[in-house]
Amino acid sequence: MEPTPAAPLESLANARARDAADPMRGFRARFALPADGRVAFEANSIGAMPADAPARAAAILNEGWRGLGRRGWSEADWLDMPARLGASIAPLIGAGPDDVLVCDNTTTNLFKLLGHAWRQRGDGHVIVTEAANFSTDLHVADGFARFVRESGGRCQLVRADSREAVLAALGDGGVAILMLTHTDYRHGDCWDLAATTARAHAAGALTLWDLSHSAGALDIDLLGADADFAVACGYKYLCGGPGGPSAVFVHPRHRDAMPLIQGWMGHAGRPGFGPDYDPAPGVLRLATGTPPVIANAVFSAAADLWAEVDRAALGARHRELGDLLVALIDARCARHGVRLLSPRDPARRGGHAAIAHEGAAAIANALVAHGVTVSFRAPDAIRFGVSPLYHNREDLWRAVSVLDEILTAQTWRDPAYQGSRL
Amino acid sequence: MEPTPAAPLESLANARARDAADPMRGFRARFALPADGRVAFEANSIGAMPADAPARAAAILNEGWRGLGRRGWSEADWLDMPARLGASIAPLIGAGPDDVLVCDNTTTNLFKLLGHAWRQRGDGHVIVTEAANFSTDLHVADGFARFVRESGGRCQLVRADSREAVLAALGDGGVAILMLTHTDYRHGDCWDLAATTARAHAAGALTLWDLSHSAGALDIDLLGADADFAVACGYKYLCGGPGGPSAVFVHPRHRDAMPLIQGWMGHAGRPGFGPDYDPAPGVLRLATGTPPVIANAVFSAAADLWAEVDRAALGARHRELGDLLVALIDARCARHGVRLLSPRDPARRGGHAAIAHEGAAAIANALVAHGVTVSFRAPDAIRFGVSPLYHNREDLWRAVSVLDEILTAQTWRDPAYQGSRL
Repeated sequence: MEPTPAAPLESLANARARDAADPMRGFRARFALPADGRVAFEANSIGAMPADAPARAAAILNEGWRGLGRRGWSEADWLDMPARLGASIAPLIGAGPDDVLVCDNTTTNLFKLLGHAWRQRGDGHVIVTEAANFSTDLHVADGFARFVRESGGRCQLVRADSREAVLAALGDGGVAILMLTHTDYRHGDCWDLAATTARAHAAGALTLWDLSHSAGALDIDLLGADADFAVACGYKYLCGGPGGPSAVFVHPRHRDAMPLIQGWMGHAGRPGFGPDYDPAPGVLRLATGTPPVIANAVFSAAADLWAEVDRAALGARHRELGDLLVALIDARCARHGVRLLSPRDPARRGGHAAIAHEGAAAIANALVAHGVTVSFRAPDAIRFGVSPLYHNREDLWRAVSVLDEILTAQTWRDPAYQGSRL
Repeated sequence: MEPTPAAPLESLANARARDAADPMRGFRARFALPADGRVAFEANSIGAMPADAPARAAAILNEGWRGLGRRGWSEADWLDMPARLGASIAPLIGAGPDDVLVCDNTTTNLFKLLGHAWRQRGDGHVIVTEAANFSTDLHVADGFARFVRESGGRCQLVRADSREAVLAALGDGGVAILMLTHTDYRHGDCWDLAATTARAHAAGALTLWDLSHSAGALDIDLLGADADFAVACGYKYLCGGPGGPSAVFVHPRHRDAMPLIQGWMGHAGRPGFGPDYDPAPGVLRLATGTPPVIANAVFSAAADLWAEVDRAALGARHRELGDLLVALIDARCARHGVRLLSPRDPARRGGHAAIAHEGAAAIANALVAHGVTVSFRAPDAIRFGVSPLYHNREDLWRAVSVLDEILTAQTWRDPAYQGSRL
């Protein structure tokens, strides 16, 4: 059943009134949003800071590092945190509590999961992805395939030029792994997780999904989609802190695969001091070395919030905020030549909404200078990374009002705003 | 020229007087040593916290994460930190400022450097290590060799039973990589870095050194020893914070090797948004994904101290503290059946000094209960991880006095102290 679209926002007062009646409004107060009052639609680049994060950091330093010292390794929860953080965010992405581990960064996790998937594959030797995939996903797959070939094996990376070409490549046979990013980082278009996974499975391929621009924003159901492997960035919508560790998901049917990086923290007797490698159960074997204790403590501030979140409610709120943003931009900015880059259908729209304009780089700079943080992507995209956990309707109203003013007054043509600044 | 051994400590007053005249005494005051006054000889497990670490953490959270938000990626030093931290500690290990990068954890870095070394090898297909190497080093090498074989290549891991057997294995021919931990984590015996590297090179092998129990304690000269690759744990003697990132070293002659994990942060145009992987120069290509911004900010507190340290002075101070500790234990505890496990020759002794006693586990527990943190390793070793940056002679005097009391009064036979607790 499709949800009924929300009525468009009519005024700042209307936005505020609807915010006041929002059952999820309490989460916003548990973030330390920017002190300068700017509206930061940057959850696709860095999620906001939970208000408790500085206290967690101070505690792990003063009571943990200084207070416990080496007893932290055995008497505190330092080595348990990767699994505990994983269990906290698992329900958000439709995974079981034992299916997710928080560790390493997304790039390293992509490499590790390619190894896992490669070992679980059937007869195929091709990794299929789209040429428009995020750069590090492409780089990692290219490097993995290169190494297999150098070692004497067969491994070919196919970078299909379009989404149709991706699906067509599955039909060519011999595909081992379909490796895709769920939400495109430019225009925000989503793959259909379940349908695409089913297509891959029908072709004898396993799926490796990068949820970096989806997890913490959308209602993701990995087990429901029968996905094989997934990674998610920890510091975007998940609000784990800048450069915070990443999440890995392994479907239970692949729990016996041997990890590519065999580390003492992924040992059954963790930390594994014995000479022989005996892998820990399931996803735990994807732990490599000593976990980043301080980063994990900071991440725990967000994880505690996520543990209170209902996935369906999160997805519904994100859809509503996105629909309201699109409707506001249509109503107030289409006349200035702004067009929507993201899909209008909310079911196909990922974490961020992107708009296009010939002056996008300068407009993005002007928005930032006027207290609305967005990001620009060449050649002509402006992205609004909307968090369903802490953004509200007033944020949308204020941001589009500023955008409208900048376009109406042509403020963005000021020489001070020319040039791309990421 | 061998340094003259320091005169033994005669009393607490003597220890204090010599501390007061120590030209490196100023560093101690820049650490937040345990607030409960315990003496923590645990630098082999977790180095002490620089006093400035909490302020660095608070700043990266409040001014960085909350204040800058996504502008931190482009306008702050977040992406430069891995190279800057590396340059700060490079002189400590005899490396050039462009030869060291701080990234990932030691286990992942061992895997990455095995890939680097494997690509730079000659005709060999054997990785030689010692069976007594640290567990994660063994696990990683086993996993790497397994994957090469699965891919159709030849790769054999030889775990030699003794140090003599390691050297003998080099003579068997076909050795690609000699992979060793410089300081043994149990008894503290060091390999001769230069001589062993020369033996490996004469046999056509490259060297991969794990400096985890050496860096920040000893005078290490990687370039002088002509070493090929090295890793160092960031959170032991280097005081980078619990689970803090690890350091990698690549000799300049191997700077053109392709990395095994090709990530956007190791791209020449970092962050590499283009579809094709173009590796950054030298060691920079060993960056994988987004750096751990918070952990790096915490690490910077220690890195700023290290940048002031003279490597030779550090090594000389460590040698003196170690010699004084050994002499004190000999003088006061040999009569209780304590014997030295570590080499008496300071040139062969690594970061920690280890002693043996049949009651080692209980003695270690009693020491911790009486304010002296040490660590136990089965079956009979007690380890004192001595930092030349913040420990002093008074610490040695106090620790050995407590040890003497525990042994004299046989306190350690109390049932409360039985059993190993790591």
